[in-house]
Amino acid sequence: MTKTPDATRRSDRSRRAILDASLVLVGEVGYNKLTIEAIAARAGVGKQTIYRWWSSKAEVLLDASLALAGEAGAEAGWTGFPDTGDLAADLKAVLRATVDEFADARYEAPVRALTAAGATDPELGARFTQRLLEPQLALYEARLRSAREAGQLPAGTDLRLTVEMLVGPLTYRWLLRTAPLTHGFADALVDRVLAGVGYVTAGRPDSR
Amino acid sequence: MTKTPDATRRSDRSRRAILDASLVLVGEVGYNKLTIEAIAARAGVGKQTIYRWWSSKAEVLLDASLALAGEAGAEAGWTGFPDTGDLAADLKAVLRATVDEFADARYEAPVRALTAAGATDPELGARFTQRLLEPQLALYEARLRSAREAGQLPAGTDLRLTVEMLVGPLTYRWLLRTAPLTHGFADALVDRVLAGVGYVTAGRPDSR
Repeated sequence: MTKTPDATRRSDRSRRAILDASLVLVGEVGYNKLTIEAIAARAGVGKQTIYRWWSSKAEVLLDASLALAGEAGAEAGWTGFPDTGDLAADLKAVLRATVDEFADARYEAPVRALTAAGATDPELGARFTQRLLEPQLALYEARLRSAREAGQLPAGTDLRLTVEMLVGPLTYRWLLRTAPLTHGFADALVDRVLAGVGYVTAGRPDSR
Repeated sequence: MTKTPDATRRSDRSRRAILDASLVLVGEVGYNKLTIEAIAARAGVGKQTIYRWWSSKAEVLLDASLALAGEAGAEAGWTGFPDTGDLAADLKAVLRATVDEFADARYEAPVRALTAAGATDPELGARFTQRLLEPQLALYEARLRSAREAGQLPAGTDLRLTVEMLVGPLTYRWLLRTAPLTHGFADALVDRVLAGVGYVTAGRPDSR
């Protein structure tokens, strides 16, 4: 049976309501206490509607987080990892945008709850890392690779290590709240990391 | 009333059993599901014995974690942050020891459970950061300061940023399990971070 346009619209609205409800709730009560029942109640749908599309709360949250990451990018006018030719400027733009996202509770609370849940639940953590985190890390890696191919990074640069030197300290400061997460921190981090891996602009060694 | 030597020994044994039980249990069931009742049962003491010394499970775990960190250091023959004059070697020794600790489930499981719990419980997180994390970060910072005073780091080096560039990527890889935590990773991280902040040995710029 083919769906009518109205039924498709209702479906889309329900899906959207379910994803939104799951994000708000996981930020409020944490992953462990989140239930499909509560998501259904908050979204104004029946439990069976959720189970028609998803097999577990983890699956709902995976899709919700992917949608959220996409929206955060769209709101920031993001059309892919920037590549202006200036690696330092591009990385600073991305890390500053990440700092801004983490300052927004709508985004921050669910991501924090899922990161914490994944840290102690290896299976959940592996799924989130694979579907959410790795695709993001791959974008950083691709940008660094293009800089390496342009001769701005030494041929032997360990791209994975470089990516983790960028996102690691930022994630650490965010998750453990050891100090304020600011644009200045993002900028200083990019400058020091690039100096550390031997970044050169226009063929000249980066000035310190 | 003064305690007899026997009573003191019994007290010490009970405290030790309680701290040990809290660490094993938090690794097994996580922070949220941990109860004073379960700690008492596992330690073979009454609940009232625990409440005589601690006001909450968070306080028990704080003391247990501090004791654990002390023991891990003692087992590694640790008598303070190494200062051989060779900053790179000293930092590699410490980060390698951290990699080894994280490979030991006795240490890893409770620290992971507490880190995750602190990430989503701001009050708990602040207490653990203040009592456990900050004292450790301060040791790194002191070592970097002595290198700066010895002229091995530029006068303007941001010590806090440098510390987070070292512990951030290591914590990230450990907590999110994005890649294996190895001595090679620790060494490469130290080399790149020190190059990034302009480390010089014996007055010569660090070779890349």
